[in-house]
Amino acid sequence: MPIDINSDVGESFGAWTMGFDEKTLAAVTSANIACGLHAGDPDVMAKTVRICADLGVAVGAHPGYPDLAGFGRRDMGMSPEEVHNSILYQVGALWAVARAHGVKLAHVKAHGALYNRAAVDPTLAKAIATAVARLDMGLVLVGLAGSAMEAAALEAGVPFAGEAFPDRAYTAAGTLVSRKQPGSLITDPQEVAARAVRMARDRTVVAVDGSVIKLNCRTLCVHGDSIHAAEVAHAVRRAIEDAGIEVLPLSDWS
Amino acid sequence: MPIDINSDVGESFGAWTMGFDEKTLAAVTSANIACGLHAGDPDVMAKTVRICADLGVAVGAHPGYPDLAGFGRRDMGMSPEEVHNSILYQVGALWAVARAHGVKLAHVKAHGALYNRAAVDPTLAKAIATAVARLDMGLVLVGLAGSAMEAAALEAGVPFAGEAFPDRAYTAAGTLVSRKQPGSLITDPQEVAARAVRMARDRTVVAVDGSVIKLNCRTLCVHGDSIHAAEVAHAVRRAIEDAGIEVLPLSDWS
Amino acid sequence: MPIDINSDVGESFGAWTMGFDEKTLAAVTSANIACGLHAGDPDVMAKTVRICADLGVAVGAHPGYPDLAGFGRRDMGMSPEEVHNSILYQVGALWAVARAHGVKLAHVKAHGALYNRAAVDPTLAKAIATAVARLDMGLVLVGLAGSAMEAAALEAGVPFAGEAFPDRAYTAAGTLVSRKQPGSLITDPQEVAARAVRMARDRTVVAVDGSVIKLNCRTLCVHGDSIHAAEVAHAVRRAIEDAGIEVLPLSDWS
Amino acid sequence: MPIDINSDVGESFGAWTMGFDEKTLAAVTSANIACGLHAGDPDVMAKTVRICADLGVAVGAHPGYPDLAGFGRRDMGMSPEEVHNSILYQVGALWAVARAHGVKLAHVKAHGALYNRAAVDPTLAKAIATAVARLDMGLVLVGLAGSAMEAAALEAGVPFAGEAFPDRAYTAAGTLVSRKQPGSLITDPQEVAARAVRMARDRTVVAVDGSVIKLNCRTLCVHGDSIHAAEVAHAVRRAIEDAGIEVLPLSDWS
Repeated sequence: MPIDINSDVGESFGAWTMGFDEKTLAAVTSANIACGLHAGDPDVMAKTVRICADLGVAVGAHPGYPDLAGFGRRDMGMSPEEVHNSILYQVGALWAVARAHGVKLAHVKAHGALYNRAAVDPTLAKAIATAVARLDMGLVLVGLAGSAMEAAALEAGVPFAGEAFPDRAYTAAGTLVSRKQPGSLITDPQEVAARAVRMARDRTVVAVDGSVIKLNCRTLCVHGDSIHAAEVAHAVRRAIEDAGIEVLPLSDWS
Repeated sequence: MPIDINSDVGESFGAWTMGFDEKTLAAVTSANIACGLHAGDPDVMAKTVRICADLGVAVGAHPGYPDLAGFGRRDMGMSPEEVHNSILYQVGALWAVARAHGVKLAHVKAHGALYNRAAVDPTLAKAIATAVARLDMGLVLVGLAGSAMEAAALEAGVPFAGEAFPDRAYTAAGTLVSRKQPGSLITDPQEVAARAVRMARDRTVVAVDGSVIKLNCRTLCVHGDSIHAAEVAHAVRRAIEDAGIEVLPLSDWS
Repeated sequence: MPIDINSDVGESFGAWTMGFDEKTLAAVTSANIACGLHAGDPDVMAKTVRICADLGVAVGAHPGYPDLAGFGRRDMGMSPEEVHNSILYQVGALWAVARAHGVKLAHVKAHGALYNRAAVDPTLAKAIATAVARLDMGLVLVGLAGSAMEAAALEAGVPFAGEAFPDRAYTAAGTLVSRKQPGSLITDPQEVAARAVRMARDRTVVAVDGSVIKLNCRTLCVHGDSIHAAEVAHAVRRAIEDAGIEVLPLSDWS
Repeated sequence: MPIDINSDVGESFGAWTMGFDEKTLAAVTSANIACGLHAGDPDVMAKTVRICADLGVAVGAHPGYPDLAGFGRRDMGMSPEEVHNSILYQVGALWAVARAHGVKLAHVKAHGALYNRAAVDPTLAKAIATAVARLDMGLVLVGLAGSAMEAAALEAGVPFAGEAFPDRAYTAAGTLVSRKQPGSLITDPQEVAARAVRMARDRTVVAVDGSVIKLNCRTLCVHGDSIHAAEVAHAVRRAIEDAGIEVLPLSDWS
């Protein structure tokens, strides 16, 4: 089984730059591009799509809550219908920017607070999954492996790719350890890379209590918001390839 | 030759309502739906698309300057590239909302200050026309008949539909009399309807100096921002049909 | 004891009009003016301040969550510090608009989801109360009578005015019956007026179970979002005055 | 005569960081803090005010066009009344944030496209100057020396401080050479510092044609958007002090 590596990019906005996108994109096979409501703007989207096209990275939409000031990281009391329509809006906006560059949209992954809530709230997860289903564009929905998002995708008949995080600690229950806990984030490049290889090869992770957890993952998330993070992304890519595992965008899996 | 009748709709935003959309849409064949940056939001867009689908009205995108507070009516110093990308963004957003409702996007018409500037600025007109061309979706571009927008559409290889305004006075040069001039707006329903019939039947208008001007128009713009305006729209529709002229959305012309 | 009557106004935005402000303001003694982040804009604020100045209505700030699309009615995961700074920002903005018109700012009342959450969340209530305290401008803080907002104002040393709602049903515990319950909203003008008189004269309300509840209220909230609501506001004002109770803005109480 | 040194700061927004504010603020006597409509947000404003308070830097408002995506650098067709009300709004918002920190607001300087347009458009300049005058807070208005802004301030009875730019080339007419011209920006720290000393000591600048131009300047603008720029700012400060010229915030001039 191959593995996909994804990263959130295109998170600059207007005069503000965020992330080391060019360096990060050279390490991944799938890009999640912000769609203008929590980050990104039409110009950033166009520029990011062009970089992806040049590098052969698959382009996906990364819709979030409409909250620029909060970067989509604050929970918002949006109704499922409001989320549903917002997903359509954001995915469509990126679809058009990509199409103008001759690029096909490949996947959708929710951002920040929307991602986190959709992982545990079946109603919200359904709102997202049915939006992707109604678009009927063959888009893969990316979400936390084993979460409500996975169940909603299955129910809606949408292809789903479970996501795992090599730089995050996992509980014995297979959920992520809260970022507020000490040790929740793993920063050593070699350790992250080793965990990534295990995730890619065995679809498992060693939890904080030492138990081995099964992860139904098809894509690994890496980061590019700092130079260090981008270097970790490259370490992950190299280690996986060195282990003889094929790194392929989701859309190229047979 | 048939004629199309269009109106700008979907201009409500969040808790704020604008226009008498349901009444107006019953009088037209093409709807220009705001795309969220100067008016409209994903929920308003979805609701408006549903009404159009029920009534069999063709759905088009009505992109504008990203200026909610100014309703897209204030000029903005956006570069042609920024306008180009913003058009892609807005058209794509509505495309997806429409697609989720099984509705095909039919046309694009710029809004407010963007419309007015694109009528006289070839660089801006080109930015819009090439965006529509690159999307390659068979969209018809609607713009002021005889304007820079028409030339840019021709140059970009995009189908163009010239627009005329039955409730506006025209100069002998075929341009609109400024709204600041007395008599620039015609409010009597029967007079507007009579002008509309002449535009639809003869493709002409009588200018303020009495001369008869040729108008290369395929669609007539009516309004729905007041009850009176919506009633004028119905008077226009009735008069054209009573004159034996076929009223057809642009996409249904053979 | 006199009573104050307040209403939320200035909720138009750009090209969108909301509410019957002129009619409503003629019935009240205190105006809560939206500050641009959930509704209102600098021009609407200026216009509303002018109407208040003409009518002798006390001007207060009505800050809300920064969510135009949701009209400040959706909960947002803002930190207490973010809310604190946002209150400073919004109150200051209205203060300056008022000052330019020779009008002194009199009070602050949170809007929508922020109001509701501050009524039950002591941390959020404290964030608001300390913002008002640090401004040290003699502003009265208006909030739900008997709520966490009242306790926070007391703790911060800020003058507090408890608010009651003549058109809302109350539980035996003195809280508002949820809008989702049948009978939660009282629409008959005479009944609302009679309840308002009781609130103003006795500081009590008859709860849904028939028990008489004590309300520590100094101001009554009326609405102006429809013609009917504005007429109810006038009925409330007349009934209170007919009962011989003095209607005075909070700032004029000795 | 003393001289003031100012810089635009507080231009971060939400999750996006811009500029090296702490380093830059250590070199200046006056800070122009963005007010949330083109850059900045309530949290950034509060943080920036705190740094200014710690360093003893005078705090001023830096209002701009309401265009986050364009960073206030794009011209906008706002009416003079809209600009007037927007200035009140933005200055008031920062005033309150400063007041909560025990800091007195000292000056106002328009940003970007608004600054540039107010330098040449008397109507717009008047809209800004009368807003500052109506606030009647003793604020100094900062603008391009010798521009329409200076005339408008004089007319409105507002104290004015002419601004000069040590890192910009000047025409023989005393205006700035367009940034699009080669040589319009001076980047060598020693050259910028030498020009600053001349501006501070003699109130003159050597124009591109070698002629010596008189500048009615009381404050010099330095930048902090890059490490290099912040170092230039420190070079300017040192050179002026080494030349025995007093560096004082405008509000401390007798």
